[in-house]
Amino acid sequence: MDFFFYPDSVAVFGSFRKGAIAYEILRNIVEGGFEGKIIPVNPKGGSVEAGGEVLEIRRRLDEAVDTAIIAVPAKIVPALIDEIGPLIKGAVVISAGFSEVGNEGLERELVEKAKKHGVRIIGPNCAGIFGVHRKFFGSFEVRVRPGGLALISQSGAFGGAALAMGNDEGIGFSAFVSYGNAADLNESDFLLYFADDENTKAIALYIEGVRDGRRFLKALRYASSRKPVIVLKAGKSESGARAAASHTGSLAGSYEIYRAAFRQAGAIEVEEMEELFDAAKAFEMYERAGRRVTVITNSGGPGVLATDRLEKLGLELAPLSDETTARLKEFLPPQCSVKNPIDLIADADYGRYRRTMEIVCRDENVDALLVICVPPIFLPSREIARAVIEAECDKPIVVNFMAGELVRDGVELLEKAGIKNFPTPERAARALRWLSLRARS
Amino acid sequence: MDFFFYPDSVAVFGSFRKGAIAYEILRNIVEGGFEGKIIPVNPKGGSVEAGGEVLEIRRRLDEAVDTAIIAVPAKIVPALIDEIGPLIKGAVVISAGFSEVGNEGLERELVEKAKKHGVRIIGPNCAGIFGVHRKFFGSFEVRVRPGGLALISQSGAFGGAALAMGNDEGIGFSAFVSYGNAADLNESDFLLYFADDENTKAIALYIEGVRDGRRFLKALRYASSRKPVIVLKAGKSESGARAAASHTGSLAGSYEIYRAAFRQAGAIEVEEMEELFDAAKAFEMYERAGRRVTVITNSGGPGVLATDRLEKLGLELAPLSDETTARLKEFLPPQCSVKNPIDLIADADYGRYRRTMEIVCRDENVDALLVICVPPIFLPSREIARAVIEAECDKPIVVNFMAGELVRDGVELLEKAGIKNFPTPERAARALRWLSLRARS
Repeated sequence: MDFFFYPDSVAVFGSFRKGAIAYEILRNIVEGGFEGKIIPVNPKGGSVEAGGEVLEIRRRLDEAVDTAIIAVPAKIVPALIDEIGPLIKGAVVISAGFSEVGNEGLERELVEKAKKHGVRIIGPNCAGIFGVHRKFFGSFEVRVRPGGLALISQSGAFGGAALAMGNDEGIGFSAFVSYGNAADLNESDFLLYFADDENTKAIALYIEGVRDGRRFLKALRYASSRKPVIVLKAGKSESGARAAASHTGSLAGSYEIYRAAFRQAGAIEVEEMEELFDAAKAFEMYERAGRRVTVITNSGGPGVLATDRLEKLGLELAPLSDETTARLKEFLPPQCSVKNPIDLIADADYGRYRRTMEIVCRDENVDALLVICVPPIFLPSREIARAVIEAECDKPIVVNFMAGELVRDGVELLEKAGIKNFPTPERAARALRWLSLRARS
Repeated sequence: MDFFFYPDSVAVFGSFRKGAIAYEILRNIVEGGFEGKIIPVNPKGGSVEAGGEVLEIRRRLDEAVDTAIIAVPAKIVPALIDEIGPLIKGAVVISAGFSEVGNEGLERELVEKAKKHGVRIIGPNCAGIFGVHRKFFGSFEVRVRPGGLALISQSGAFGGAALAMGNDEGIGFSAFVSYGNAADLNESDFLLYFADDENTKAIALYIEGVRDGRRFLKALRYASSRKPVIVLKAGKSESGARAAASHTGSLAGSYEIYRAAFRQAGAIEVEEMEELFDAAKAFEMYERAGRRVTVITNSGGPGVLATDRLEKLGLELAPLSDETTARLKEFLPPQCSVKNPIDLIADADYGRYRRTMEIVCRDENVDALLVICVPPIFLPSREIARAVIEAECDKPIVVNFMAGELVRDGVELLEKAGIKNFPTPERAARALRWLSLRARS
């Protein structure tokens, strides 16, 4: 499927008036900096200005390209595929009006024409695809930063919202695919592909339902054996399942069966949308982490909240070794607490954080660190961010800098160094939980 | 306690070098626009520039004020209270170094001196107080917008972080109090006070432990009978309780007992920090909402996620009346789903949203609306925000506009109209759950 996610050339079919779907996709591809060939196609011809460039619109496709993106009326899609089939490897069909509105026949025809030419189809009724490391943004959704997350979404709107929120959360993406009606390629195909894609460090999957459960379980198991697969299943409740049926036509099936399948396959199931981002952030940084956590904080309350959550999630507060405790006592002021959670108190500075982190990191009883900072007025959060960045430690460190404007500087510095911030102690604790699910036991 | 939260005059004691606690508090009071008298006091005299004003520093307090804010070394606090006792009604003791580090004797002395003069004490070892509607910011924490939430926090750092995050979440505050060691006034006193404070629409309480459980239960019950009280209890787990003991000296006690007490008193217990904000946002808008919710969305996936969460939280998807369904069918395109969740599909505009909301709102089976919008490229989120603002509906409406940059405009417009946005479908669903806990059954 490299022709979809690492194409050398693409053709876009549809209307190129401003605001039209094909125009918006073309603009996204040009503005995103795609370096391959871009061919807009419309029988009317003419030219189109997009992203500061003027492109000639061809009346028909007259040379071979890797991928076609199609946003023409549904009823002419099968004929178009039949016409351009010999020139393309894959087609992303954005057009709606197929099985999702009862036009099963039209969808079957589309698939038949594609099969005839050996063309693979994504969609129809989808929001498109991104191959971020090829700077290929073949969708009207907001562009994202390059990174390690491949997002596979059955719902186009969910996918679009997740991309935009991912930008806000500092997530980097390797790819995005909205697969709509899944007439040809479906979730299982994408799982298998991204499992072996070297730019993808983690996969996030939004599904309402799957058709071939057996194949899905196999694909999920394979992908999970290669890298973390985060799954958000919608349609878990009775009303939710009914809504899903009318949305994507998914027979959501018993949630219990899905749940068991996720667990069996070793996937990371998250409960809600926000958790999807948090898990993605965690796995962009680390492959896994053990269960024994040490909390380091400059503020008691948030330390207690983190501790509560860690314990509730089944993680352990690491029992520090006598040596660690002794070494901490050597330099920490007597008001500090050297038990886990370690409270460095409000005036903790660069040195106190960094040295504590380095000592704790060397303790064999410790698998991971959760570092909390609520900067008091007299201490810029940048200082503590530097301590986290510069501390010599080869164990996973999950960071919770609070709050808002107080830590904007520090969080920015952390993000530049590839360290993602979790905005509350509980969300940081949850990140460690997901990392622990990938730990070898 | 009006002299604390609506003072006419305050004196600040401590060092007025830049960066010193007393200086920072003085600066906050001046910059916050406090209109009463402000008297800095330090035996060295001189003057201090704060917030563009130059104030004379008095060598001793020589006139009566409502409240003294004290940030001098712990050991001289009792003598200071004894000296100024006849001139003040209340004192906020910021200074640390009392019972929290084992100096129980010094704390007793402080309380005795205060009692002798009939002075009430907040603290010691606290972060100060805000009386936001008096523009009185008697703390070094970040200033906040006026609004309906009174925040009572046992942990100063938690309080400070919550204020800053509250600013980001668009929460307005009536008051803030960090009560530290609670040598005199404690959580129960503040609950009783804010229960009757007319600027306070909801109370948020962070506690690790309370000393007088019986009095606390009574105060909590009274406050909850007047307005929503949101409680976040830290120290729930075994390790958390141990950490709390070393943080605030709280005997956290069995969490089960607290939990039962919260429920008995009718308080709203939240599980984590983020939920505290979401609940506060919900209660700043509405007093309560019934359990029968209608979801209106332009995007199937997020609608399913909201539905799942509502059902999991024990709320109901309202069964729409035949009349409602018929009236919706009259004008909605046939691809829309007129069952709950109502899917207005991607091209839903101002009119489609507004009219749907108004029809649903008139249905007797419906208690509350959850409105989701994931704006497609061709539709600015402002349009849908206007529909929400202008729809004639007297039932609670909770809004989830997604996502990030895509909805920045719309969310801004909503917030100006006093409608707070919940960033994910699940957080919006949870907001409705809390509102339902206050519904008369």
